Amino acid sequence: LLGDLPPAQASEGLAQMEDAGEVLPLLGYPDETAGGLMTTWFIALRRHTTAEQAIQFLRRANPDTDIPYYLYVVDRTQRLVGIVGFRDLVVALPDTQMEAIMNPEVIKVTVGTDQEEVAHIMSRYDLASLPVVDENERLLGVITYDDIVDVLEEETTEDILHLGGIESGPVIDKPYWDQRISSVVRSRFFWLLALFFAETFTGTVLRHFEEELQTVVALSFFIPLLIGTGGNAGSQTVATVIRGLALREVRTRDILRVWWREVRTGLLLGVLIGAVAYGRSLLWNVEPQLAFTVALTVAAICLWANSVAAIVPLVANAVGIDPTIVSGPLMTTLIDGTGLVIYFSLAAAILPEL
Amino acid sequence: LLGDLPPAQASEGLAQMEDAGEVLPLLGYPDETAGGLMTTWFIALRRHTTAEQAIQFLRRANPDTDIPYYLYVVDRTQRLVGIVGFRDLVVALPDTQMEAIMNPEVIKVTVGTDQEEVAHIMSRYDLASLPVVDENERLLGVITYDDIVDVLEEETTEDILHLGGIESGPVIDKPYWDQRISSVVRSRFFWLLALFFAETFTGTVLRHFEEELQTVVALSFFIPLLIGTGGNAGSQTVATVIRGLALREVRTRDILRVWWREVRTGLLLGVLIGAVAYGRSLLWNVEPQLAFTVALTVAAICLWANSVAAIVPLVANAVGIDPTIVSGPLMTTLIDGTGLVIYFSLAAAILPEL
Repeated sequence: LLGDLPPAQASEGLAQMEDAGEVLPLLGYPDETAGGLMTTWFIALRRHTTAEQAIQFLRRANPDTDIPYYLYVVDRTQRLVGIVGFRDLVVALPDTQMEAIMNPEVIKVTVGTDQEEVAHIMSRYDLASLPVVDENERLLGVITYDDIVDVLEEETTEDILHLGGIESGPVIDKPYWDQRISSVVRSRFFWLLALFFAETFTGTVLRHFEEELQTVVALSFFIPLLIGTGGNAGSQTVATVIRGLALREVRTRDILRVWWREVRTGLLLGVLIGAVAYGRSLLWNVEPQLAFTVALTVAAICLWANSVAAIVPLVANAVGIDPTIVSGPLMTTLIDGTGLVIYFSLAAAILPEL
Repeated sequence: LLGDLPPAQASEGLAQMEDAGEVLPLLGYPDETAGGLMTTWFIALRRHTTAEQAIQFLRRANPDTDIPYYLYVVDRTQRLVGIVGFRDLVVALPDTQMEAIMNPEVIKVTVGTDQEEVAHIMSRYDLASLPVVDENERLLGVITYDDIVDVLEEETTEDILHLGGIESGPVIDKPYWDQRISSVVRSRFFWLLALFFAETFTGTVLRHFEEELQTVVALSFFIPLLIGTGGNAGSQTVATVIRGLALREVRTRDILRVWWREVRTGLLLGVLIGAVAYGRSLLWNVEPQLAFTVALTVAAICLWANSVAAIVPLVANAVGIDPTIVSGPLMTTLIDGTGLVIYFSLAAAILPEL
């Protein structure tokens, strides 16, 4: 992949290839940056190189190496000044200089740019390749579209694992069958344990309401149903917000507008499902006040779940935490406990026995 | 995008461009197939066309249109017989025929191929473009890498929405802020309602065990904790299996092997978390038999959740249902109800009061 044209093949003053020695510094760039993604295999020409000289050079180059999609034009300090497509080169008259056919408005990134940002730029501008420069605009390498497909797949895998409550680190770089069971357990144990402890908060709430539970045992029938509905409403909102963030449609500064949208949606859904819940509860022959408590709790929990689920991913994003990490089971667990508080508070206010 | 070279520009017997009339049939291909993705803008040459003729043709072509990455070689019935890269054309001697420089081993797809399959092929073989043919191998169009990036993003959005319990249809084609609240509610209501009804199964289970709940009210303290842990373990397994399916690492025929892997993982995690649960329950001053019941239930639920979560996505995939649809809240809801049955059955067997 890091194929190379020996400098001896280059016509004098015509083409400059990075030599093999320069591949080594690549190891110095973090994997998830433009520097870690780029190949140093590219063809750099000068402004005054003619089309014929360029073609002569290409003719002598090793034909077995991968096809680059563009030729790059640099000045004498290696600063990137333009790009030339192969098609422009093919159709140019032989003595046309690169300066005349190059596009001087080059979209480029610096070597430390995050791979997600790189993927976003290439996808937004439909680029087959993207040059990488250092802080002095000197051309260091090129990222091609196929690297971006890999980045997108890796980012998706990471998001799906996070949303499922898995620490992606121990398993992300291995295909399913190559993951050792011990790594799989490691990637899941911490979260399962942390969520277990977070979820014990629900037990604390229930112990607090032990007397109410003893007086009206039917209250407990609705516990999984209510916290389940809250978790589901929260999951829906989180999915929407997470995706909006990933696609750059939603930004941190939109937090109030997002919250307001999701609150209205939550209220509408809560009232609709609450009405259904009222009817369904009566079918279980519980007293009407309890059915009313359940219906009101459904509406309140949907509203609350949507609020929390709208805000948490955006706050996480603002403070530099990957929002997918806090948006899966952790969010559901948070909604479970607070949902129970809503339920028993409403029950204590509405039911005459309590 | 569907820019075009009028046939008059083509040298005799040299190049054949699809003409504008042929763009119309595109509308006949479903959006999510190769036919719906392809552009009919491509350059087709014949075997005996020379490099010089090809370059002459390109010189006269409209330079404002997008650069295609390859030239295609077809026979007289439009059957695709090879591809030529621009670089090969640039470096070829003027009288070289296409036949000599073309690569006859062309990776191609037929017009009805699903877009996910197209993305998979292009990503697997690192292709910048992929020709689309009809059932007689006649060249119809070309799909380029930038379409694939869009497909991958759309598929990811669909997966994340499904896993969040949202019907993607009403919202998938609109950015966050352009989705009307009514469409958002529509995309979420059905699932929230269906899950509500599915979750009422937990109420049925609890009513069935009303007597036990009345006798040992402390049993109810652990309900959200236990079904929460089951849901979390299931979410972890589902995330792993779903991603394995999407990356083609896991296939339907692997169902028993996947099940066996996830069962072992579930057992290990269940025993670990169960041990923690035992200690934590004692801290709540419940009787040791109840703490033991909770610990055993944690282990059993983790095992059960992993079993269900390993099998359901693969069965869905086998019968042609998108596995992400059944793998989010629907799975959690299923595990909630069955988890309660496990809990109360173990309690009835272990606790002396029951």
